[in-house]
Amino acid sequence: MKKFDPPVTVAVVGAGVVGKEMVRILEQRRFPMKELRVLARSSRAIEVAGKTYQVRETAPEAFDGVDIALFAGTEGEKGAAVTFGRQAVARGAVVIDNGSDFRMDPKVPLVIPEINAGDLDWHRGIIANPNCTTAVLLMAVAPIYREFGVKKIVVSTYQAVSGAGARAVEDLRGQTEEFLRNDSVRDPGCFPDPIAFNVLAHNWKIEADGYSNEELKVIRETRKILGDKSIQVVPTTVRVPVFNSHSESIYVETRKKAAPSRVRALLARSPGVTVVDEKSPRNGKVCPMPVYASGGDDVLVGRIRKDPSNPKAVLLWAVGDNLRKGAALNAVQIAERLVKGSRA
Amino acid sequence: MKKFDPPVTVAVVGAGVVGKEMVRILEQRRFPMKELRVLARSSRAIEVAGKTYQVRETAPEAFDGVDIALFAGTEGEKGAAVTFGRQAVARGAVVIDNGSDFRMDPKVPLVIPEINAGDLDWHRGIIANPNCTTAVLLMAVAPIYREFGVKKIVVSTYQAVSGAGARAVEDLRGQTEEFLRNDSVRDPGCFPDPIAFNVLAHNWKIEADGYSNEELKVIRETRKILGDKSIQVVPTTVRVPVFNSHSESIYVETRKKAAPSRVRALLARSPGVTVVDEKSPRNGKVCPMPVYASGGDDVLVGRIRKDPSNPKAVLLWAVGDNLRKGAALNAVQIAERLVKGSRA
Repeated sequence: MKKFDPPVTVAVVGAGVVGKEMVRILEQRRFPMKELRVLARSSRAIEVAGKTYQVRETAPEAFDGVDIALFAGTEGEKGAAVTFGRQAVARGAVVIDNGSDFRMDPKVPLVIPEINAGDLDWHRGIIANPNCTTAVLLMAVAPIYREFGVKKIVVSTYQAVSGAGARAVEDLRGQTEEFLRNDSVRDPGCFPDPIAFNVLAHNWKIEADGYSNEELKVIRETRKILGDKSIQVVPTTVRVPVFNSHSESIYVETRKKAAPSRVRALLARSPGVTVVDEKSPRNGKVCPMPVYASGGDDVLVGRIRKDPSNPKAVLLWAVGDNLRKGAALNAVQIAERLVKGSRA
Repeated sequence: MKKFDPPVTVAVVGAGVVGKEMVRILEQRRFPMKELRVLARSSRAIEVAGKTYQVRETAPEAFDGVDIALFAGTEGEKGAAVTFGRQAVARGAVVIDNGSDFRMDPKVPLVIPEINAGDLDWHRGIIANPNCTTAVLLMAVAPIYREFGVKKIVVSTYQAVSGAGARAVEDLRGQTEEFLRNDSVRDPGCFPDPIAFNVLAHNWKIEADGYSNEELKVIRETRKILGDKSIQVVPTTVRVPVFNSHSESIYVETRKKAAPSRVRALLARSPGVTVVDEKSPRNGKVCPMPVYASGGDDVLVGRIRKDPSNPKAVLLWAVGDNLRKGAALNAVQIAERLVKGSRA
């Protein structure tokens, strides 16, 4: 794999919640940048962490001289990477796309650096970032997969609204205020039904066999990232009234016996994972939860326990910042692997 | 089983969220009452559905002449049924306890009328009502158990705050207002951590093997109600920022092949269950959710689908009003079975 000499010219395509988070993380991690261009559908100024960035309109020539282009992407519709990705590559850039368009393309590696950085070796200009739910899930499950083997994953999610974009965040805030005043919500906004004080197991398009497209992504992306088509993944994806960070209740059937104490020790030494299941002095309970996971890099894992009826199984509760490890941070970590002497 | 001649004298013990709901449901269902006494720790007046009730202080003599005593109960500490239950029975009342104190007592039947009404035959004065999470779970799973057999249940819950009482409801409201103003919550109130815009997988005491006492209740009560000690139950109970109605993501391993179409038809004809998984004209999606389940009697079930890797498994999404079928309604339904000529 060709690596760039630092400093490099970086483009961030998208100025929504994920695009802004990419800019924030590039700056936070002091990514070695000669130039940072923020591109979006229309030119304007945005502010990230107290600094103002001039957004330019995305166009093929905006990628001239760009080494690495981070596309914020969208989960639903086709993202800018479909329109501009190949043109950016033709101009010499490596594209890292957080959208869903290229993830299952067999010519595009789908990468979580802690898990399958080796797949970066065969990229042809485009590298895909996984879905936020897959990223949080696999940060917790991949170490178990390597150590004990994994036959099946049954996962139920508690997903934050920020994963659906800035408008969804505003909808949760507005609907909550309205509900507190009127005890009801008139307009569900970008959700199929009100999200305030509610739980939506139908926040994504339902496709084959009754699975939502979010659930199908988790199934397919897990198999691609772990490189194992035999792995059984049975997800139920659910939106909850939380602003940021996805929580996941995970049941893992392993191939070898997986004692909780061994799983805890394994996860405690896994990069990008913090085990949070100690007793706190205050109330004897501490556990991963969205309000504390947000803004952090690591996926938090707790409630590690056995299935008393099956020694080849373990339960986990994982929480991760969907905008960071679930999107922007993972993309920047991939970018770091593309630059000589940068973190790896 | 001895049945009472209507009308009967009823006592409701408790004037919190569940006690009030018991009063509301007794009136709604026109339970044949000669007299309704509301008893609680201190005397006061309460209003339910626009009607005022004088609450008397609970004392042994307050049960004189009472035929059926409904104890609202508590999940955490010992409930009034421990102090007053046997005295009420000694005075000739049948006690229906919604608290957790007697549920696992082998001399006390634990009953969901649609599932195991036959167990009422061997009561000795005290009948137990299940935990709200168990009730919602089994309304969806018991018909599947009878038709296909059930080997294992993996369930993750999305539980409303009303299950933790009136103070928890006020805490969610207060914390939400505070969070919208200040972006943080200073005092988590009756929760271990803030519940506003957050998800708590540690809202109950953690006991043996890392399971919470709520999870252990679901395991033990499921086995007792279904009368099957071999059934494997693997729950993860989670509190979400929802005022009322519990949602549950349920994975059921059956003993016989259970096609989703057959499960759907079975649940559609099961009393107390409404299948909600049709497409709606508005957005092509409709699904059980807390804001619509609240105030209703039935447990709503949707997202009925197969595990593509296992024909002997089915997935469900169930939502039920934890104060009604999960508590007060189920208790009143038991009471109805104790009165001649009443609904059954």
